[in-house]
Amino acid sequence: SAANMYGKCNHPADSSSSCKRLGFLQKNNSLEERSRIVTSFKERAAKNLQLSCDNVGGEARFRRTETDFSNLFARDLLPAKNGEEQTMQFLLEVVEILTNYVRKTFDRSTKVLDFHHPHQLLEGMEGFNLELSDQPESLEQILVDCRDTLKYGVRTGHPRFFNQLSTGLDIVGLVGEWLTSTANTNMFTYEIAPVFVLMEQLTLKKMREIVGWPEGEGDGIFSPGGAISNMYSVMIARYKYFPEVKTKGMAAAPRLVLFTSEHSHYSIKKASAALGFGTENLILLKTDERGRVIPADLEAKVIEAKQKGYVPMFVNATAGTTVYGAFDPINEIADICEKYNMWLHVDGAWGGGLLMSRKHRHKLNGVERANSVTWNPHKMMGVPLQCSAILVRERGLLQGCNSMCAGYLFQQDKQYDVAYDTGDKAIQCGRHVDIFKFWLMWKAKGTVGFEQHIDKCLDLSAYLYNKIKNREGYEMVFNGEPQHTNVCFWYLPPSLRGLPDGEERRERLHKVAPKIKAMMMESGTTMVGYQPQGEKVNFFRMVISNPAATRSDIDFLIEEIERFGNDL
Amino acid sequence: SAANMYGKCNHPADSSSSCKRLGFLQKNNSLEERSRIVTSFKERAAKNLQLSCDNVGGEARFRRTETDFSNLFARDLLPAKNGEEQTMQFLLEVVEILTNYVRKTFDRSTKVLDFHHPHQLLEGMEGFNLELSDQPESLEQILVDCRDTLKYGVRTGHPRFFNQLSTGLDIVGLVGEWLTSTANTNMFTYEIAPVFVLMEQLTLKKMREIVGWPEGEGDGIFSPGGAISNMYSVMIARYKYFPEVKTKGMAAAPRLVLFTSEHSHYSIKKASAALGFGTENLILLKTDERGRVIPADLEAKVIEAKQKGYVPMFVNATAGTTVYGAFDPINEIADICEKYNMWLHVDGAWGGGLLMSRKHRHKLNGVERANSVTWNPHKMMGVPLQCSAILVRERGLLQGCNSMCAGYLFQQDKQYDVAYDTGDKAIQCGRHVDIFKFWLMWKAKGTVGFEQHIDKCLDLSAYLYNKIKNREGYEMVFNGEPQHTNVCFWYLPPSLRGLPDGEERRERLHKVAPKIKAMMMESGTTMVGYQPQGEKVNFFRMVISNPAATRSDIDFLIEEIERFGNDL
Repeated sequence: SAANMYGKCNHPADSSSSCKRLGFLQKNNSLEERSRIVTSFKERAAKNLQLSCDNVGGEARFRRTETDFSNLFARDLLPAKNGEEQTMQFLLEVVEILTNYVRKTFDRSTKVLDFHHPHQLLEGMEGFNLELSDQPESLEQILVDCRDTLKYGVRTGHPRFFNQLSTGLDIVGLVGEWLTSTANTNMFTYEIAPVFVLMEQLTLKKMREIVGWPEGEGDGIFSPGGAISNMYSVMIARYKYFPEVKTKGMAAAPRLVLFTSEHSHYSIKKASAALGFGTENLILLKTDERGRVIPADLEAKVIEAKQKGYVPMFVNATAGTTVYGAFDPINEIADICEKYNMWLHVDGAWGGGLLMSRKHRHKLNGVERANSVTWNPHKMMGVPLQCSAILVRERGLLQGCNSMCAGYLFQQDKQYDVAYDTGDKAIQCGRHVDIFKFWLMWKAKGTVGFEQHIDKCLDLSAYLYNKIKNREGYEMVFNGEPQHTNVCFWYLPPSLRGLPDGEERRERLHKVAPKIKAMMMESGTTMVGYQPQGEKVNFFRMVISNPAATRSDIDFLIEEIERFGNDL
Repeated sequence: SAANMYGKCNHPADSSSSCKRLGFLQKNNSLEERSRIVTSFKERAAKNLQLSCDNVGGEARFRRTETDFSNLFARDLLPAKNGEEQTMQFLLEVVEILTNYVRKTFDRSTKVLDFHHPHQLLEGMEGFNLELSDQPESLEQILVDCRDTLKYGVRTGHPRFFNQLSTGLDIVGLVGEWLTSTANTNMFTYEIAPVFVLMEQLTLKKMREIVGWPEGEGDGIFSPGGAISNMYSVMIARYKYFPEVKTKGMAAAPRLVLFTSEHSHYSIKKASAALGFGTENLILLKTDERGRVIPADLEAKVIEAKQKGYVPMFVNATAGTTVYGAFDPINEIADICEKYNMWLHVDGAWGGGLLMSRKHRHKLNGVERANSVTWNPHKMMGVPLQCSAILVRERGLLQGCNSMCAGYLFQQDKQYDVAYDTGDKAIQCGRHVDIFKFWLMWKAKGTVGFEQHIDKCLDLSAYLYNKIKNREGYEMVFNGEPQHTNVCFWYLPPSLRGLPDGEERRERLHKVAPKIKAMMMESGTTMVGYQPQGEKVNFFRMVISNPAATRSDIDFLIEEIERFGNDL
């Protein structure tokens, strides 16, 4: 296999036709010639250092100069000797590419995406070759690759990108990510991430205060997304009630059941499977027509499970369901959890952000009674991906549940207070720094800035709802103003409007949203999600979390739906 | 709790003493005055647009100009109207901070860290205030926060940072991360991450080829770190042998046991706890004195478990243990796995990188017989954190194990080949783009570039080993040249050298490494890890993965150990 690795030359330098086919842009200079050019460049670069670098207040300040990257390679960058000038010029050239992308992201005259099928991209678009090679490519080619990667991607920050719960490109958040990757460290110990560890602690405490736990007491951690945060909640609940499962496995526990709504996120089901409960022991609760759990159904199913000899252990209440944006009635669910001694988790991955709004936080009334809460700032609060927190009311459980006391990381004889080494709380070992961008955004916007963003998004969704609720050709999936920014609707092309309700209409309507969506993507003008739900055929789910979106973008979406859908 | 949120003003603008105490640098202009200044700036900025922006080849090109950020706020940045100039100037100012940090990272005259205790940072260092506030702070303050965050952090890319398995700051990898965060998308569907999804597929295939699976067949996914990758391996093994556990839970399986070495990473134990096996059902295998599993011990323990009525299901062989850098004998373990029908996982989180080296890959001989492999490019291959892959030999298992068929994301009626929607393979829902930086580094270095890096690191560790193995005051923790870059040793201060072996010597020696490490951190000159292992008292574990490290840095480390340790 070593031969296989190195034996195959993907880009023979002697075959110009092959290179052309593979779309290489760099010139194939002979090695000798390259070496000569590089030497000459380096001499020039050493001189340029004076030219392109001012000394301002003791700090060298680099200016971007025209640089020939075609004969420079990764090995010429720092830590290479005399690599500083090349490194700075390369970084500044990349920044030029990125800032241009940022500017275009907010420019409505650009497309949201330039759609291509997988086979098209795999075949190589205008020289964009995705295959990896044995030999290095020039930095010029690397810059081309960066441009192409952005060109064929999707502008998730574009004012007309509505496709996911996470949208937008927050500039301060972006700056936070750039700094985070430059710092390139790991959250597991205070030793190598002192500032980030403290930022995480302070931010988690602030979030717990906002949830409403006295003095912000409790615990928590940032995890790689809402699914993992929800998985934490199930693990911690199990540890609380049956700590011996940690050492003895599920065999040490009685037959446990978990509850969540039919409309809840599939991650609760994933956790049931992964943690050894089994998806059949996750009992789905009925919802009302707006997607909210019916508390009486929970109590009936708890009683039924107990009668069958199961032990009800965990209830997930969703604050902002994925499709309808529904908020389960937390207080009524909390009453039942208290009565039957069950763990109450609130999945606020999507709806948690509303806690920042004095106007909308009542939708989560009762959240302070939860034992744990998932809250993803990377959704409604516009923080770049990924940023998800699991908050736990009782201290010590996270540590107790996950601690394995690894001696090589969590030495107890360090010179600082090792309570700040948070790694043993996690199911991860190394953990990415997700906190800084969020902390920096909070500093820059203030709590009030998040509130304004959230209120604005909810206003926009009310605008959309009011615009289409009585508009010809539209049917709402459920009645009444949405609780979150989710607006769910069918668009009926004129050809369907006269059809009586029945199988034919259902079948044809089911195909409308996918067709419109496909045309939107091909034209690249906007993106919005669709899906079926239960018995309901495909409908659009419009969500607004994008800070760049305005009423005119909502109007545009409706125009596009009608433009593409009119003749279906 | 809403009142609690907004009622408490952390930074009253009318209390200058309070502001001073909290270390605020911005001037507290009245709102009116601020508004006036911002308006005036915006007018100026609109003019500046012409001044600071050249039009080169149709692309606007921004030049950094002196900008007053003290009266600019996050709300003045894009998507704000006329926010382009401010946004570009703010981004360029941040880039100035980051590029200065990059240059200093590689400068041996700078410190690795500027150590402070948690309480010192929490009290506020020279105005660095970590507390979050309700009101926004100026962009000037945000820039100060960025500088302070870097100032009080740890330079993990510094040539003398040896503290973790992940070290170094690869410039191309850094560029990859900057681009990734600018693109800010999610790996779960081809729809919104077309290029990254394809890059992941091609890179995983290449990694499987290098593992040695025919034609690179199989499956895999990038996960948030080696612990999660290892957790995947246990989940998939369970699904392969007992697929009904997914629906019915662990109650549907017999009493299962797993095997791993005493020296293996604690993540296998975490997975046993989390997935419902129980840590007691993870059986630890004896190792030889160099930390390698003794295959006969595995077979004996398998037979013993079977006799007790347990079903042996899973064996983890470590390729590169965390502390000793030992490689378990994979072929002999594979023989036993085949004989007893057990899943063979190879945890190559640390050692997987050696597969890229023709000289060193023999240490993983037999890896092609594994059912799954963990391989973290963010360790030995110098890719920025996080970048970890779980590779699986049999196709379909990842999907079968984790799929929940969420209709709102993985619609089957999309216009493109939905086999490219990889999200349902994951235990996550949203998934960070970890592939791009790795793909870009591979392009830029080529396979040969990774090989050179790995060979160089192993050469350096051989240099260290040869330097200290017979040096006065040093004792090696195990005999013989290390298999990986881990060099484990005790430093004995002169005061200990004459002591006979016994409890007093052990106790005193146990305290040496922590003391030297504490002094290193206080002085900020270098960082290296230490830990006890089994019966062995605290020793240094030197690891080399840092591309910036040279022999002189190794020499420096030894000088520092002796400087700090001489008088202990």
